Amino acid sequence: MSTLHPFDQAMALHHSDLRSGLFTGATSPDYWNMVGPFGGTTAALALQAVLRHPDLLGEPVALTVNFAAAVEAGQFEVLATPVRTNRSTQHWTVVISQNGQVNTTATVFTALRRETWSESDVPMPEVQRPDDVTPIRIGPEGVAWLGQYEMRPVSGQPPSVWDGSGTHSESLLWVREHPQRALDFASLAAMSDVFFPRVWLRRAHRVPAGTVSITTYFHADAAVLANVGTGFLLGRARAQRFFNGYFDQSAHLWSEAGHLLATSNQIVYYKE
Amino acid sequence: MSTLHPFDQAMALHHSDLRSGLFTGATSPDYWNMVGPFGGTTAALALQAVLRHPDLLGEPVALTVNFAAAVEAGQFEVLATPVRTNRSTQHWTVVISQNGQVNTTATVFTALRRETWSESDVPMPEVQRPDDVTPIRIGPEGVAWLGQYEMRPVSGQPPSVWDGSGTHSESLLWVREHPQRALDFASLAAMSDVFFPRVWLRRAHRVPAGTVSITTYFHADAAVLANVGTGFLLGRARAQRFFNGYFDQSAHLWSEAGHLLATSNQIVYYKE
Repeated sequence: MSTLHPFDQAMALHHSDLRSGLFTGATSPDYWNMVGPFGGTTAALALQAVLRHPDLLGEPVALTVNFAAAVEAGQFEVLATPVRTNRSTQHWTVVISQNGQVNTTATVFTALRRETWSESDVPMPEVQRPDDVTPIRIGPEGVAWLGQYEMRPVSGQPPSVWDGSGTHSESLLWVREHPQRALDFASLAAMSDVFFPRVWLRRAHRVPAGTVSITTYFHADAAVLANVGTGFLLGRARAQRFFNGYFDQSAHLWSEAGHLLATSNQIVYYKE
Repeated sequence: MSTLHPFDQAMALHHSDLRSGLFTGATSPDYWNMVGPFGGTTAALALQAVLRHPDLLGEPVALTVNFAAAVEAGQFEVLATPVRTNRSTQHWTVVISQNGQVNTTATVFTALRRETWSESDVPMPEVQRPDDVTPIRIGPEGVAWLGQYEMRPVSGQPPSVWDGSGTHSESLLWVREHPQRALDFASLAAMSDVFFPRVWLRRAHRVPAGTVSITTYFHADAAVLANVGTGFLLGRARAQRFFNGYFDQSAHLWSEAGHLLATSNQIVYYKE
């Protein structure tokens, strides 16, 4: 019987003997979305291959993941390549493939940080604490990956009536893994993608939508993440511009203590 | 005597016979920054190689450019590869090299757009019109690339006294190319990077700083850009989080008519 957390199972990568930086893994049924894996886990896997690479320098600062084609259930290969290593920084490219076909490309920037003057220009919104917010119940009829997170929506929940009455695109929610798990860079990358499509909220109209590319900046080091531990994150997401089939989403993730841990942007396809 | 606009000269790429998607170009002295080319032109060149590729499908929607190492004055090679082509979308990787060493990596997403419901959730700030704002004068002592833009700062100008008194990181300015040039995707990509480092404004303290990675989402098609023509863009930039050597900058670019043409984010190295 496995004692691994479902997220660690999803992140499990095995070194391939074929080439340095090449790993194999398998999609996790626990994080299945409607027609493929939860994009957050795919993004996290691209990062995970870098974190597992023996030549890694420093910690993640920036991650861009492009969802180029559908990921099928089953095995995949991840190839992480350190393109350029400087004294204290490293640039990576990552490719995820199945049956020799690329379905995901990514770039990662890692760095050795030094302690410097630090500041946040985006204070955490003043909202109810997690204990005062009712969790969403994910029934067995729901998609699997939603069951891996405890979500306590503060505002901007999915419309209960799809009547075209939407007026804004902003959601705030407390989120942490379920079962609880100490935060790390991979899980933070995944949690940057937990927000439902902004177009549903903005229009109160349900249309097909899917992330095309996501970029996450990490504003934390391992010590900061260790301090967060299994605590909740406050996530805020909103769209900025919807234009002819694509909209962008800007997201922020704070620790309960108010540390802005990550800022994330994505461009999302939508129909109609 | 060349009649090409300096930006078109900077964007000039020549097909190489060696490999499909491989181009050669040369850095432009007109867009020189302090110790290398203006990053905006490097980002635009990565996009330009995709736009020049014979297999291009659609128009740019997303561009991520990673500045992996210094670009030296002189010749460079750009290799644009269509990694995955779907029915109406295409994912690209781009690499810029000099003397066989990669200095820049990029990913580009292009798509055939369809007309859909469209909306902006970030209205253009109400500010003075360009004619009512005094342009910055760039003297011959200044860096070259700044002379290629007409900038009319509305607020958040670089501090006149570096006394550590900064309180915010937001700048607003009207900007267009000088001499005037009709807007296209490459110039919009470059203009997403015209803002001086936010850390200088935030701290009123001048420290070494440089962009590491920039991601720009285009919310326009060729027809929208043609309507903008040589008009001004209103640019807004602000930092969100400064943490141990890296801060992120969120930027917005509107047309004079108030169309949000691009949203752009970058992660920037800073010292001290």
